[in-house]
Amino acid sequence: MNFRAEIDIMPHKELLDPQGKAVKHGLNKLKFSTVEDVRVGKHITLKLSAAGKEEAAAQVENACRQLLANPIMESYRFEIFEE
Amino acid sequence: MNFRAEIDIMPHKELLDPQGKAVKHGLNKLKFSTVEDVRVGKHITLKLSAAGKEEAAAQVENACRQLLANPIMESYRFEIFEE
Repeated sequence: MNFRAEIDIMPHKELLDPQGKAVKHGLNKLKFSTVEDVRVGKHITLKLSAAGKEEAAAQVENACRQLLANPIMESYRFEIFEE
Repeated sequence: MNFRAEIDIMPHKELLDPQGKAVKHGLNKLKFSTVEDVRVGKHITLKLSAAGKEEAAAQVENACRQLLANPIMESYRFEIFEE
């Protein structure tokens, strides 16, 4: 079975996010004065095959821990969809 | 009213994604042999105030077009949540 994982990897809330600050500043300059906070992270779409949804989720969890996210600076969340 | 927009900005499907290719290669090397395709993009969490959900969506749409996404290389999608 084929699955698609949609993964968001974001900087921890406690950490400064200079890229987010720069984007907020840019938006405010462009007259988007109602924008109060911006955080910028990564989005990863991953296609994989697995015997079932749970196995796919376990694989994605491992991939996040071992390669995709840096647990010191980032948190991740994902959803699995059957293709 | 306060809203939160969760925005995904991804490289167009037709375009090569060297970062995605590198991540796929890394995962395959780490014995994630079932991973078939990886695309890497940006995830932006944006907090803003607006009179209603529709106005918030219109603002986020404009922000994506004017600053956040490069329409030549990237496509975007977003969801709006009331905070």
